[in-house]
Amino acid sequence: MPGSPDSTAEPAGTGGEAVEAMVEHRRGKLHPAVARTREAVRATLSELPRGTTALVACSGGTDSLALAAATAFEAPKLGLRAGAVVVDHGLQADSAHVAETAAEQCRGLGLDPVLVCEVEVGTEGGPEGAARAARYDALRKAADELAADVVLLAHTRDDQAETVLLGLGRGSGARSLAGMAPAVGLLRRPFLEVPRATTAAACIASGLRPWHDPHNDDPQYTRVRVRHEVLPVLEEALGPGVVEALARTAGLLRADADALDQLAADVAETALGRAEGQVRCDVGVLAEEPAAVRTRVLRQAALEAGCRATDLTAGHVASVDALVTDWRGQRWIDLPQGIRAVRQGGFIILGPDVTG
Amino acid sequence: MPGSPDSTAEPAGTGGEAVEAMVEHRRGKLHPAVARTREAVRATLSELPRGTTALVACSGGTDSLALAAATAFEAPKLGLRAGAVVVDHGLQADSAHVAETAAEQCRGLGLDPVLVCEVEVGTEGGPEGAARAARYDALRKAADELAADVVLLAHTRDDQAETVLLGLGRGSGARSLAGMAPAVGLLRRPFLEVPRATTAAACIASGLRPWHDPHNDDPQYTRVRVRHEVLPVLEEALGPGVVEALARTAGLLRADADALDQLAADVAETALGRAEGQVRCDVGVLAEEPAAVRTRVLRQAALEAGCRATDLTAGHVASVDALVTDWRGQRWIDLPQGIRAVRQGGFIILGPDVTG
Repeated sequence: MPGSPDSTAEPAGTGGEAVEAMVEHRRGKLHPAVARTREAVRATLSELPRGTTALVACSGGTDSLALAAATAFEAPKLGLRAGAVVVDHGLQADSAHVAETAAEQCRGLGLDPVLVCEVEVGTEGGPEGAARAARYDALRKAADELAADVVLLAHTRDDQAETVLLGLGRGSGARSLAGMAPAVGLLRRPFLEVPRATTAAACIASGLRPWHDPHNDDPQYTRVRVRHEVLPVLEEALGPGVVEALARTAGLLRADADALDQLAADVAETALGRAEGQVRCDVGVLAEEPAAVRTRVLRQAALEAGCRATDLTAGHVASVDALVTDWRGQRWIDLPQGIRAVRQGGFIILGPDVTG
Repeated sequence: MPGSPDSTAEPAGTGGEAVEAMVEHRRGKLHPAVARTREAVRATLSELPRGTTALVACSGGTDSLALAAATAFEAPKLGLRAGAVVVDHGLQADSAHVAETAAEQCRGLGLDPVLVCEVEVGTEGGPEGAARAARYDALRKAADELAADVVLLAHTRDDQAETVLLGLGRGSGARSLAGMAPAVGLLRRPFLEVPRATTAAACIASGLRPWHDPHNDDPQYTRVRVRHEVLPVLEEALGPGVVEALARTAGLLRADADALDQLAADVAETALGRAEGQVRCDVGVLAEEPAAVRTRVLRQAALEAGCRATDLTAGHVASVDALVTDWRGQRWIDLPQGIRAVRQGGFIILGPDVTG
């Protein structure tokens, strides 16, 4: 649609569907960006039984307002009840007003009930981590209070790409590059394959007035630097489609990590034993497995023995694995929290008072 | 070593070894960067039987000159024969002179035999791809001619990090983020965990005169843009240690991909059958497997049916997978090269003339 104010919007779907949506829009029927957001929400909601309550987590920003609108439209058609929760983090002077405005827009869209929850943000895990922890805690409580079965989050494909890049800095393997899950516990993320440009276009097309969070431009946040500094340079160097490639990578690596974690859990059932504060790994069982499974089992053993996940590195685990695959009579391996790993005959023993 | 011209060098090894290397160096014995390069080469060469011939692939640049020097030092101690191959790509006016200078330095280090191979670079796969193809081909031929058992390549931890970022743009999962293999076929890469700063410091400490390839600064190459534009911005946003994290990611994802590819190959043995130009997949067998394995088996089936790897996307495979996991009587799925996938009873059939 050259010349249209909505020309930033992606066509909905592919091939025939996109053309159909365009034609409908020209007839004044449905903007393709709105169609795309509704289609994404419908795919998520159609997996829920009739009579279920879904809550939209809405900040009043572009993504969650588009999610609120699409949910308000789709839920009744599927026999579902749809409400919203607005979390007021109390971090900005006008946060109560912003929250109330978001709640009013949700009510105006027909969502019911709409709840505003004030939370107190602590300090643990840095500013982003603390706000996230307080928010998810409030969402769980609201779902409990309103007897809701799912909470819908508005993370987009762009958010997913940023999450993958943030995970790259950790270097801790597939799980840290797997981004956010489309579904985990109560939470559902219908927009994980929807571009941010589409939610923005959907808001414009629907006459919604999103709130612009000034935190989204504050370079003190790592995510903001990734969004405004890293991604444009990456796209410039590698060519267009990087955001899509990153989001696709997340999905593929999530499937890999799920499969290997499950395999490792199965092997751990046979290979691991616990006694007197120590964890024992059967070398004969481990040695049959590929490195990706062995290291996952050994990592689990070290965590059970008392290592903290945040302190236990891939390097530590590789050293313990060498007791299995490259046994030359090494002494013990020192692990975090004073835990040691040592090989005794056909077993690796992990614990606080282990000596070779 | 504050004030030393070599203060960019990393200490060799960790803990006790690093201190020891520092002390040795202060006694005028051994620069830690040289120690680190030798240690890395020793780890690779010590896996070879005595009497083996190893060839260093040397361009005359910093990394491969440091590799040549470390190999010349370590190989005789392990009872190995060490030579070098210099590939003259003929892409720059002075390439013959550059190659001859590199060969002379290799001979000066005691490597023998030292061979210069002229190659013709084609055009297929773009300038970087074509040069790489010609180079690896020449290396294999040289190894054959000189009855060498391994060829040593000087790729560093920084090269590995760049390769991971280049793979991100493809978005095709663990294998495309797994970087370069430490060992594959004839090839060995002893420096994959050694920083580029260390090879540079080792050259300075050893009085070697590396050639600076102007292509390494030419932003027409994607890898050069990743090195000079993307990595600094990524390090700025995510903090130091990004290169190390990327290289570690490569190793972990390589192990994951190896394990899952092997599992998929085992499942394919049972699940896949071939007849009359078609590939049949047993839905009952596939349905027992996690998504990471199912999609790998289905991808293999599509390739065997005639799809080209470069045209077959994760999206295509996901559509075929939906015939297994979300069967609602769909018609066929169109795949590249005119291949179709269709479900018939308990089988997915893939081939050129398949109809639902």
